[in-house]
Amino acid sequence: MAKAVYPGTFNPMTYGHLDVIRRGAAIFDELVVAVTGRSVTKNPIFTEEERASFLRRHTQDIRNVSVEIFDTLAVDFVRAKGFHVLLRGIRTMSDFEYEFQMALTNRQLAEEVETVFVMPSLEYSYVSARLIREIVAHGGSVSAFVPEDVEEALKARFER
Amino acid sequence: MAKAVYPGTFNPMTYGHLDVIRRGAAIFDELVVAVTGRSVTKNPIFTEEERASFLRRHTQDIRNVSVEIFDTLAVDFVRAKGFHVLLRGIRTMSDFEYEFQMALTNRQLAEEVETVFVMPSLEYSYVSARLIREIVAHGGSVSAFVPEDVEEALKARFER
Amino acid sequence: MAKAVYPGTFNPMTYGHLDVIRRGAAIFDELVVAVTGRSVTKNPIFTEEERASFLRRHTQDIRNVSVEIFDTLAVDFVRAKGFHVLLRGIRTMSDFEYEFQMALTNRQLAEEVETVFVMPSLEYSYVSARLIREIVAHGGSVSAFVPEDVEEALKARFER
Amino acid sequence: MAKAVYPGTFNPMTYGHLDVIRRGAAIFDELVVAVTGRSVTKNPIFTEEERASFLRRHTQDIRNVSVEIFDTLAVDFVRAKGFHVLLRGIRTMSDFEYEFQMALTNRQLAEEVETVFVMPSLEYSYVSARLIREIVAHGGSVSAFVPEDVEEALKARFER
Amino acid sequence: MAKAVYPGTFNPMTYGHLDVIRRGAAIFDELVVAVTGRSVTKNPIFTEEERASFLRRHTQDIRNVSVEIFDTLAVDFVRAKGFHVLLRGIRTMSDFEYEFQMALTNRQLAEEVETVFVMPSLEYSYVSARLIREIVAHGGSVSAFVPEDVEEALKARFER
Amino acid sequence: MAKAVYPGTFNPMTYGHLDVIRRGAAIFDELVVAVTGRSVTKNPIFTEEERASFLRRHTQDIRNVSVEIFDTLAVDFVRAKGFHVLLRGIRTMSDFEYEFQMALTNRQLAEEVETVFVMPSLEYSYVSARLIREIVAHGGSVSAFVPEDVEEALKARFER
Repeated sequence: MAKAVYPGTFNPMTYGHLDVIRRGAAIFDELVVAVTGRSVTKNPIFTEEERASFLRRHTQDIRNVSVEIFDTLAVDFVRAKGFHVLLRGIRTMSDFEYEFQMALTNRQLAEEVETVFVMPSLEYSYVSARLIREIVAHGGSVSAFVPEDVEEALKARFER
Repeated sequence: MAKAVYPGTFNPMTYGHLDVIRRGAAIFDELVVAVTGRSVTKNPIFTEEERASFLRRHTQDIRNVSVEIFDTLAVDFVRAKGFHVLLRGIRTMSDFEYEFQMALTNRQLAEEVETVFVMPSLEYSYVSARLIREIVAHGGSVSAFVPEDVEEALKARFER
Repeated sequence: MAKAVYPGTFNPMTYGHLDVIRRGAAIFDELVVAVTGRSVTKNPIFTEEERASFLRRHTQDIRNVSVEIFDTLAVDFVRAKGFHVLLRGIRTMSDFEYEFQMALTNRQLAEEVETVFVMPSLEYSYVSARLIREIVAHGGSVSAFVPEDVEEALKARFER
Repeated sequence: MAKAVYPGTFNPMTYGHLDVIRRGAAIFDELVVAVTGRSVTKNPIFTEEERASFLRRHTQDIRNVSVEIFDTLAVDFVRAKGFHVLLRGIRTMSDFEYEFQMALTNRQLAEEVETVFVMPSLEYSYVSARLIREIVAHGGSVSAFVPEDVEEALKARFER
Repeated sequence: MAKAVYPGTFNPMTYGHLDVIRRGAAIFDELVVAVTGRSVTKNPIFTEEERASFLRRHTQDIRNVSVEIFDTLAVDFVRAKGFHVLLRGIRTMSDFEYEFQMALTNRQLAEEVETVFVMPSLEYSYVSARLIREIVAHGGSVSAFVPEDVEEALKARFER
Repeated sequence: MAKAVYPGTFNPMTYGHLDVIRRGAAIFDELVVAVTGRSVTKNPIFTEEERASFLRRHTQDIRNVSVEIFDTLAVDFVRAKGFHVLLRGIRTMSDFEYEFQMALTNRQLAEEVETVFVMPSLEYSYVSARLIREIVAHGGSVSAFVPEDVEEALKARFER
């Protein structure tokens, strides 16, 4: 029975992430969404607890999905859970290259962990957390890219 | 319980294909390797029966793998089996672009079929069926890329 | 007043082409859709007259669009019309590379002709004439990619 | 009558930018070069007023070009002007991917604004503002990439 | 003392090829331009003797360059000469991917042969033998891309 | 007799760098590995002396390789040595694009300096200095990517 971990920064969580989660949940018996903890190099807008909280709220209707915070290498987290699949969404060429470099490095670090890729829906294929942050910073609406509660939290954060 | 179809031309089967099959078999409960039948546009070296036969011989030790021939759209074959996962190996940028175009088209044709990508081992990442055919045509050895029986059959075919 | 030529094979015309035409018609004062004539190297499904006819039928409601057949280099056609803009749709990396090579070659051949690129709607970004032909050849439905009359003509052609 | 906005950071303005401006001015009835204001995330060498000033000086001979500073989302600036074309130069694959992601996001934010791409001259295709800043920082000459006044201002800035 | 082989189809020889040859001749003590013989899969316009003849005529002023015809794998030709460098020009992303796949395959076939890449001049970076053949077929001028004798031979060939 | 400079940050030196150095040393009569000095924009883990020291220790068995520190433009360093070849390893698409932009800029700055590319071994093709730093920061092992002394120095640095 294949169980998978979907690691990420989720800074912030987007409809694209939710789409990958739904696809992963339909393929695997269990899917743990794993939020990168304090070691994120780029300045996060939300704490790891806040990011995990958004994910929990928007995946609570999916029976076999849970959300955890981790602060090790992703492959070490997969191993610690006793799983052997690492799920990633892939959308663009530059995604592809980065993800492959990461997946090959992970294979070197933990041969038994397989990285598996799915594509989000086309309508979310161009959504990037960085563009979302820029739009909000300029006062634009991101309601097409993130749920309402995320948008509001983003706006509150940028108003400060 | 996720079951997957791995469709392809396998013209000829390489160590790269076998690597993808082993990875797929470790993730999915059942994996059907599906050989494209008579409708292959490019002139095949081996008949679909020959290609399926090589695959069967080299996967007979993997409990949950079987080999079939199909002559419809790949998504229609997945549907006919009652499966909902289509497995593909992905190695290079141009692979990536073609595979994504195909996967998005397939999603349009059969929304319930999910395309899932895995990476073959790095050592097989540059093996291409076309280069293999060229090497054999020039009298070179392809023993690093295909099993011995495939190499011999290729040589016999090009000698004619 | 900028006038543009949108050259192509249109083999067959897709919703993606119609989308590019509508976008071009909104930018330029006049847009001539130019169908490559007999010199198409790849075996066309439809004659240039048939291809032009589909385009005319589906663009007849757009005031500033007309359809012509040409059999010279695209830049020579643009020049012969007294225009100086060549319009192209661009969707993917491989599109990009091919289109740039072509545009730079065209600039060498006719410095005064500017190539201008627009993006089709995301929903048409993965539609390829080649995949459409393959799907029809396997008996699949392409109603999401081409208008009904084109699909019917394609099916009739492949049945023969 | 199509009017276009060409937004950018212009940090600093290069011959590549001037080339795109000349091409845009030949296609559109009016072209507004729009300099990103205070919200630039990366530390700018020149203030937005300085950057706009270089652009004005080097485009003053082009009748239908003007230069403005903006501090909103680019699409909101296009809308505020009552225009519906956003012009961008595109040179490389990584340009391509970034520009497409941006253009698709902009289309979501303002459906009526069309992003249109042109290619700068081949000789400016590899000029990057970042490389220019690095060369000046190492005491190299950038006279092939920027006008004399820009080079002198850059040198003065790095000497400090 | 490093000696190199520059293998290719040269169908036809372009200014881009000559540029790579001059660059290679400045780096290596000896450079053998190696013309692929009868086993070219795509229908050649000129025989291998004709292609070699154009190369010889246009490189006769370069002391350390010679031209040969070969009909084996390129690495086997390098080996037979007792050399260990294979020179290739590289211009575009798709070049890059194909060349890398080829170079990795060659490394597997002959570990001691190193593939070395140089970039042609920017002005030849978009010249492709295929586009040249298309332009001539449509009656266009290719004098910017190939020497006069090659252009005349091309025209004579397409007139037939 | 061709002599080459292989410039880089080497932050830290990896097996991939050593592989490129061995390949370069087999092609060129003399190879100077040139370590970027104080002007590195990104915060270096090791001083330029430390980085040069690792390189010297691991290349001391290669007769024609030496290590130097430089703090000018790479092409100016090549010129100052009286060399005319700049060696670079190239592994990925994004490498390719960045390296080409750099090489074209360098050609503009110093026409007589030729940039030559080699590929590292496939097993080092995905090793990135950035990923190595991330792995060490998370307590993972990088013994597959760097020699033991480099790994120990990295760990000591991150413990602080």
